[in-house]
Amino acid sequence: MIFRQLFEPDSSTYTYLLACERTGECVLIDPVIDTVERDLGVLQALGLTLTYTLETHIHADHLTGARKLRAYTGSKIAVPAMDQLACADIGVEEGVPFRVGDIELAPLFTPGHTGTHHAYLLNKGMQPVLFTGDALLIEACGRTDFQSGDPAALYQSIHNKFFKLVDETLVYPAHDYEGRQITTIGQEKNRNPRLGQGKSLAEFVQIMNEMKLPYPRKIDFAVPGNQACGQCPENVPEQYRGPCDITALPIELQRIVGDQG
Amino acid sequence: MIFRQLFEPDSSTYTYLLACERTGECVLIDPVIDTVERDLGVLQALGLTLTYTLETHIHADHLTGARKLRAYTGSKIAVPAMDQLACADIGVEEGVPFRVGDIELAPLFTPGHTGTHHAYLLNKGMQPVLFTGDALLIEACGRTDFQSGDPAALYQSIHNKFFKLVDETLVYPAHDYEGRQITTIGQEKNRNPRLGQGKSLAEFVQIMNEMKLPYPRKIDFAVPGNQACGQCPENVPEQYRGPCDITALPIELQRIVGDQG
Repeated sequence: MIFRQLFEPDSSTYTYLLACERTGECVLIDPVIDTVERDLGVLQALGLTLTYTLETHIHADHLTGARKLRAYTGSKIAVPAMDQLACADIGVEEGVPFRVGDIELAPLFTPGHTGTHHAYLLNKGMQPVLFTGDALLIEACGRTDFQSGDPAALYQSIHNKFFKLVDETLVYPAHDYEGRQITTIGQEKNRNPRLGQGKSLAEFVQIMNEMKLPYPRKIDFAVPGNQACGQCPENVPEQYRGPCDITALPIELQRIVGDQG
Repeated sequence: MIFRQLFEPDSSTYTYLLACERTGECVLIDPVIDTVERDLGVLQALGLTLTYTLETHIHADHLTGARKLRAYTGSKIAVPAMDQLACADIGVEEGVPFRVGDIELAPLFTPGHTGTHHAYLLNKGMQPVLFTGDALLIEACGRTDFQSGDPAALYQSIHNKFFKLVDETLVYPAHDYEGRQITTIGQEKNRNPRLGQGKSLAEFVQIMNEMKLPYPRKIDFAVPGNQACGQCPENVPEQYRGPCDITALPIELQRIVGDQG
C-alpha cells in the first residue's frame, strides 16, 4: 500500500492518498480544489489511477477538488450517503466497507462538527489508522457552531467511536495549523485540552460554547460549492476564483488525463 | 502484526512490543527493569512468547529489563554488536536484518547520543516505521554530553539516516517527557527546534553545547548495570533496588514463565 499525506496551506488541510499497490487504484480523502494540479502530479509520479475522491464532510473552509479531479481523471465522487448530494457518484455509510483495490476503509458516522460528518478507519497493519476529518484534531477538534454542529454530539462521536480504539491507533486529522502531522488516540486521551484527562461532556460543551471564533472566511461560497461537489458558485470572490478554472491543466499533467481531459 | 507502545513513568521511557501474529514470537525494544512485571502481563494477555529483547543503546537513565526478562522467559538479549557485551546473546549491526517471526527490522548505526547507538527501521506497511531510540525525540533529541556523545555525529546520523526517509515515516522515540507518543520525519524536519527548518550543523552543535542539563540521576549505576545487560550493580541506591529483585514474580505471572522461572 502507498500512502501520502499532502498539505494545502491556505486552509491548512491535509489530503490523504491511499493506493493499492496490486491494482494501482487509489483514493484521495478530502482533496482541495487549490491543489488538484499538485495531486495529479503525485498520481503521475507514482503511476496511480485515481478511482475515488472521498469526503469526510461538507467543508466550510475550502472547496473540494472532487469535481475537478473527476473532470480530469474520470474518478468517482464518494461522499457520506446521508449528505444526499445529487452530484456524487457513491454514498458511503457506517457498516458498509468502502473498498479501493485491496484497501478497505470502515466509514464511521461521527456527527458534531457537521450533522453528517464521517471518519474512516483502516484496520489492517501494525496499528489501526483513523482519518478523523474535522471531528478530532491534534490537541483540538472541529468547531461546532455551524452546519448543524453540536458539541454534545461531537463529544459522543469522539468518545463512542474514537476513544474505544486502542491507544496506539494512528490519528490523521484533516487539518493542523501548527505543522503537526499525526497524533494517536492515547495521546489525545492524555493531552487534548478539550477532551483529555477524562473531561466530562458538560466541560466539553462549555469549552466549545465559550469559544469566540471568527466567521469562516470561505463558508459563504464553500458550503454551496461543496454541496455541488466542488463546483464553484457565482459568489466565489475574485481572489479565490483561480483554482475554479478546470481548463488550465498544465501540459506536463495532460499525459495522465488522456481522453477525459 | 501486534504492536504496543508501553510507558515507564520514572524515566519516561517507551518500550515497544512487536509481535508476529503467525508464530506468536515477539521482541521488546528497550524494556525497563521497573516494568518487567507489567510487560510479562502484556505478553500473557496477548498469548505471546518473548523471543528477544533488543536495545537501542546502553542507557544512562534506567536499567534495562533484558536480563530479568531472560531469567523469567528464556528470551535472548540482542544489543548492538559494537557494544561487545559479554552478557548479550546476539549482536545486531547495520546491514544485517534482525528477524522475529515474519518481522524484519533494519538496524541503523546512529551515533551521537552514545558512540554505539542504533535505531531500528521497519519498512513494511503503509509507511516506514522508525524506532529512533534517543537519537531523535519529539521536538528534541538525546543529550550528547556523556557516553562518547558527539553533537556533530548526532547531526549526521539524523540527517543521513533519518531525514532521507519519506516525510510520512512514523517516528517512535524512546522517551517523551510531555505525554506525546509519536511524530513523523516530516514533522521533525519542520518543527524540531534543534534540527528543523534546515538548521545547520554549526547551529545544532552550538545548541547542544550550550545546554545546561543536570547530571543524570541514575547514570552512575545505570551504565555499569546496562553493560551487564541489566544486572543491578552494588551501587544501586536503596530507593531504586526494588526492581532488581528477580525472585518476586507475582503468582499470576508465573504461568507464562514455566520452568524458566
